[in-house]
Amino acid sequence: MLSAFFNPKSVAVIGASGNPEKLGYAFMANIIEGGYPDKGKLYPINPKSDEILGFKAYKSVLDVPGDIDLAMVVIPYPFVPAVLRECGEKGIPTAVVISAGFREAGREGAEREREVIEIAHEYEIRLIGPNCLGVVDTYTPLNASFAAGMPPQGPTSFMSQSGALGAGILDWALGGGIGLSKFASLGNKADVTETDLMAAWADDDTTKVILAYMEGIPDGQEFIRVAREVTKKKPVIVIKSGVTEAGSRAVSSHTGSLAGSEQAYKAAFRQAGVLRADEMEELFDCALAFGYQPIMKGDRVAIVTNAGGTGILATDAIETRGLKLSRFDLDTQHALEEFLPDAASAANPVDVLGDADAARFARALEIVSADQNVDAILTLLAPVAATEPAEVAEAIGKVSQKTDLPIVASFTGAVRMKPGIDVLRRYGVPNYPYPKRAVKALAAMREYRELRALPLPEFERFAVDNDAVAEVFRKTREAGRVTIGDAEARAILEAYELRIPRSELAATAEEAVKLAGDIGYPVVLKVASPDILHKTDVGGVRVGLQSGSDVRDAFDLITYRAQRYVPEARLWGCLVQEMTPPGLEILVGMVRDPQFGPLVTLGLGGIYVEVLKDATFRVAPFSRQEAEEMLNELRARALLDGVRGAPPVDKEAIVDTLLRIGQLVQDFPEILELDINPLMVFEQGQGATAIDMRLVLAPSRSDDES
Amino acid sequence: MLSAFFNPKSVAVIGASGNPEKLGYAFMANIIEGGYPDKGKLYPINPKSDEILGFKAYKSVLDVPGDIDLAMVVIPYPFVPAVLRECGEKGIPTAVVISAGFREAGREGAEREREVIEIAHEYEIRLIGPNCLGVVDTYTPLNASFAAGMPPQGPTSFMSQSGALGAGILDWALGGGIGLSKFASLGNKADVTETDLMAAWADDDTTKVILAYMEGIPDGQEFIRVAREVTKKKPVIVIKSGVTEAGSRAVSSHTGSLAGSEQAYKAAFRQAGVLRADEMEELFDCALAFGYQPIMKGDRVAIVTNAGGTGILATDAIETRGLKLSRFDLDTQHALEEFLPDAASAANPVDVLGDADAARFARALEIVSADQNVDAILTLLAPVAATEPAEVAEAIGKVSQKTDLPIVASFTGAVRMKPGIDVLRRYGVPNYPYPKRAVKALAAMREYRELRALPLPEFERFAVDNDAVAEVFRKTREAGRVTIGDAEARAILEAYELRIPRSELAATAEEAVKLAGDIGYPVVLKVASPDILHKTDVGGVRVGLQSGSDVRDAFDLITYRAQRYVPEARLWGCLVQEMTPPGLEILVGMVRDPQFGPLVTLGLGGIYVEVLKDATFRVAPFSRQEAEEMLNELRARALLDGVRGAPPVDKEAIVDTLLRIGQLVQDFPEILELDINPLMVFEQGQGATAIDMRLVLAPSRSDDES
Repeated sequence: MLSAFFNPKSVAVIGASGNPEKLGYAFMANIIEGGYPDKGKLYPINPKSDEILGFKAYKSVLDVPGDIDLAMVVIPYPFVPAVLRECGEKGIPTAVVISAGFREAGREGAEREREVIEIAHEYEIRLIGPNCLGVVDTYTPLNASFAAGMPPQGPTSFMSQSGALGAGILDWALGGGIGLSKFASLGNKADVTETDLMAAWADDDTTKVILAYMEGIPDGQEFIRVAREVTKKKPVIVIKSGVTEAGSRAVSSHTGSLAGSEQAYKAAFRQAGVLRADEMEELFDCALAFGYQPIMKGDRVAIVTNAGGTGILATDAIETRGLKLSRFDLDTQHALEEFLPDAASAANPVDVLGDADAARFARALEIVSADQNVDAILTLLAPVAATEPAEVAEAIGKVSQKTDLPIVASFTGAVRMKPGIDVLRRYGVPNYPYPKRAVKALAAMREYRELRALPLPEFERFAVDNDAVAEVFRKTREAGRVTIGDAEARAILEAYELRIPRSELAATAEEAVKLAGDIGYPVVLKVASPDILHKTDVGGVRVGLQSGSDVRDAFDLITYRAQRYVPEARLWGCLVQEMTPPGLEILVGMVRDPQFGPLVTLGLGGIYVEVLKDATFRVAPFSRQEAEEMLNELRARALLDGVRGAPPVDKEAIVDTLLRIGQLVQDFPEILELDINPLMVFEQGQGATAIDMRLVLAPSRSDDES
Repeated sequence: MLSAFFNPKSVAVIGASGNPEKLGYAFMANIIEGGYPDKGKLYPINPKSDEILGFKAYKSVLDVPGDIDLAMVVIPYPFVPAVLRECGEKGIPTAVVISAGFREAGREGAEREREVIEIAHEYEIRLIGPNCLGVVDTYTPLNASFAAGMPPQGPTSFMSQSGALGAGILDWALGGGIGLSKFASLGNKADVTETDLMAAWADDDTTKVILAYMEGIPDGQEFIRVAREVTKKKPVIVIKSGVTEAGSRAVSSHTGSLAGSEQAYKAAFRQAGVLRADEMEELFDCALAFGYQPIMKGDRVAIVTNAGGTGILATDAIETRGLKLSRFDLDTQHALEEFLPDAASAANPVDVLGDADAARFARALEIVSADQNVDAILTLLAPVAATEPAEVAEAIGKVSQKTDLPIVASFTGAVRMKPGIDVLRRYGVPNYPYPKRAVKALAAMREYRELRALPLPEFERFAVDNDAVAEVFRKTREAGRVTIGDAEARAILEAYELRIPRSELAATAEEAVKLAGDIGYPVVLKVASPDILHKTDVGGVRVGLQSGSDVRDAFDLITYRAQRYVPEARLWGCLVQEMTPPGLEILVGMVRDPQFGPLVTLGLGGIYVEVLKDATFRVAPFSRQEAEEMLNELRARALLDGVRGAPPVDKEAIVDTLLRIGQLVQDFPEILELDINPLMVFEQGQGATAIDMRLVLAPSRSDDES
């Protein structure tokens, strides 16, 4: 249904004007000059005119005799609600509201925007904007935008939350930088979002690559769900700005201090298969490769160059970005040696030398493109004496038409290279001013291929005792608390079948001694108080207690300290706990991200996570495979496999913990934050024990379910 | 003296030709078209012609009546030696040898190159090349290069080891990308190197920025020494390619496995104050800012934009690169609020809105440039409806002429922005197609300012007992060994006054028990064998021995194991060692880099250096301040300051160890590799103890001193 935005049979421009000073004129003019009237019907709407720019005008959409597919709304904001109602009554399915003065203009504007959305919902109108620059479809052709001039047709479609950025992009396309299929300026995203358009463009035949600039995502879970499917069909490349915005949220957990909005986006994009560009240059560089060349099938690149220096620079970039130089078959090397001059290099990078003419380039490219060890070809041209840029470009273009390998080029220089660059563009061979940018584009292709090859995730569910957990939460809240630790936390872990150390609450020293005898020495004593979350900070933990007298001393010391340092704390006594054998300390945690929901963390415990921030993230729900990926993303992952003679740890137990915690935080949206710290992981086959867990609940359950 | 290459009073073109097919024609033509004959004398040399392109030709330089400052040699390689001799006899001080067929062409070529260097040395001719593309000076004007067309004058000078890359650069300059003062293609660098030219250009008035592309540095120590001085005068920006070349050298130490050629370059460039660009794009982006704008005085950037989206992208880039957004004075903010529309943002980034005309931009820029919290201004322009690119560019240019702040711009788009970009170029305001590249250039300025502000290093020397070390080395070699550990290593550490644990060699278990009693329990026992370097690997270390029977058991176990696992090892017995109290384990080491010499490492010991490769490097000699910097470059540096309640460690002891080891490896070039692992560092004021050291010597001293 969103196709009516781009390929309408009829368009009404509400607020059309014959006065070139008015915005309503620009839109009319652009639609007309773009050639739309040859394909569909154009209805200017203006209560004061009978004809605008040669088209019969109507006072209202209600006066238009036929159906209207798309309404362009270009009128001052006070009139938008009434006009939108008329659109609804006319049965118009889609509207683009250009008008500003809504949410971006403060509280009153936000109120107005709510009114507009209500009307749209009431009449089932899909709405782009308000406060946007319009839409373009080069194939319809429809230029319902601010931008004068229709950009050239091409394989990429672009959506932008920022109108001005969108304008820059259209201007860049007009300059021949890239060909466009569709363009949409999304403005305030009151109704249609990136997720909606992404889903629509996934099935659009003229869109080969989906590009987006976004500043925020209203429903992150929905975005991931949709993008997981879309990216299996075509690449989605996104600039997400605001990456460094300082997290202003107060956090009380380790996980909270590690997990910012940037981590959430990184995890979400990875899970969704979305490629991330950090700037427009990177976005377009990748779009050129994806739009005009086949996806790279492996990671091996052949370089053909007329200059050793650029070959070295490209090799550096290839190795830095995780690609590889192809190692040619002997046949290839012989064939190259046969016709290349002695001083040339027949190994990769192939250096055809500065005096190479186009014929020598062509032959080298043909031989290289036939080698089975080549997944992509990068051609480099420097303007030395003999160089024939246009002829070399022709040779590259012709090889590119014959092979199913992606071919990209980097012609270095400006004046002499221009004719060659124009020829490359005609053949759809992306040219990059410097080798590194070409390599980055190839690396993005490789990344996309790998992401696309991942199976759609299957989410496991474990049989757990949800009622027990609900009961703990109910009691906690009844007691007016929002933090949970100790025995209550253990009950939750047990309900989700995660292993915990044997542990009992002792109200007195005598009770503690008795319990220690039952559990077996050595034991650990920990202060038990709902008001003391960071027990070690108040000297509230004693480990390695070997005897009854040890336990008695520890009990007295701990309770004395707790009373002294936190006099207002309610003191329940001490937990007597089985002393867990040493293992690798792991942190598993969760914070609730405002855009994506439950963000689950895995980190190496202790000093690693504190000093080195060595942690990785996934948005729940995630699959077993995704949990396994998390282990591989830790910088200190070698510790999991054992170093200095230590045996490998039980990775499956970590994965299992991640999946069960993922389920817990989905089942109970009232959990705001959670830390298992440490999860003590033993050697392979020996499992893991959650030594300690802390949880923070939302103040009241109803707040979370809204 | 190198100035004769660029500003000669007379030039001889040896191999000049009137045949447009010949290289000797191109050089003549380029020199003539470049305008040189108006300034100096041009002598074509060709035995077969009397006149070439209107200039009287001579059979040999010896026939030329006047002095010759510069000889351009454009003849086939077999004739180069003889011709160079004639140049010497004529007393020509400088020669550029274009001819190929030397070192780059294999063994015979290398032989020829040696001959050419000998002649040059004999006659005291300074020589650029062979196998190069020539030199250019736009101010002389002299275009003694392949490149047709004289690039525009400007503040940057460029030298390139790769001729083809140089050609690309000249073409880019011709296209208006940047203005050049000097250009040199260095070819095989048989005589004149980057270091020589850098020193010469440091005193060149028309060179504001020195740029270089290099693949290797023949004398790294000399390069650092010269560059330290040059970079105090003007920025030097270098592309060093071949960064990822896999280190193929066999290494036997921890330091060796960490330290590759990339680490050596990184350390050397940092010590030399040289900025590193990873590609040509970055090189030119930085060169534009350095060449045309004053150096940024602080790290605070003000943004003035007509589009919120680009403002956010620029803010991201600013924070990612360690710069800061300026916080305006209240006066500034009020002044902006007074004239900007309500919807605009008067805080940084200043958003003058999409409908801003040039006057609004101008006023905002003037107010912002007067704020004392601003160290640089970044102006962003997106092509929305009201945008007037040329007028806005004029406004920016005028503010730039009035202020001493650096101003850079990013006009986004192609077609509509062109007139504005041309105006910016006229005013010397660098324009970048995307905000991130502008921010990277500003960040490079900030980095340069900080590097330039560092004092020239003072190298300390400690009074040490070099004779004792020499004696250890002599004995080791006499014994036919090249590795040193244990007691011998301890003697070296003592000679350099580094603290070591008390330790004695015991040949028998009884001796070990007696020594342990003298040293005091607990003690450590370690296998003593010149053939076992990795003691723990063969179970050759026992710690925490509390009694005589412990020591006896350990002695027997260790010697049994050593005999069993390394039957061929010579076994001296066991070292009985004082048990050092626990501290922070640090690695201090050295490998000898082929280009830069002694590369000293600091790493966090144990798992940190093994798993996380957390280490940093400096080329010796280095100053105390440089050693202190090393501590701050560790990722896990927080450990030095104490985490989880641990006290800060004795950083001065680490610095002292680095400086003494730096001196040791300079004093004894025969040391190839060295590891102190661990250096146990105690809390502040308590010093550090070198627990273990291993050293590898060069096979024979004479090899090293060559």
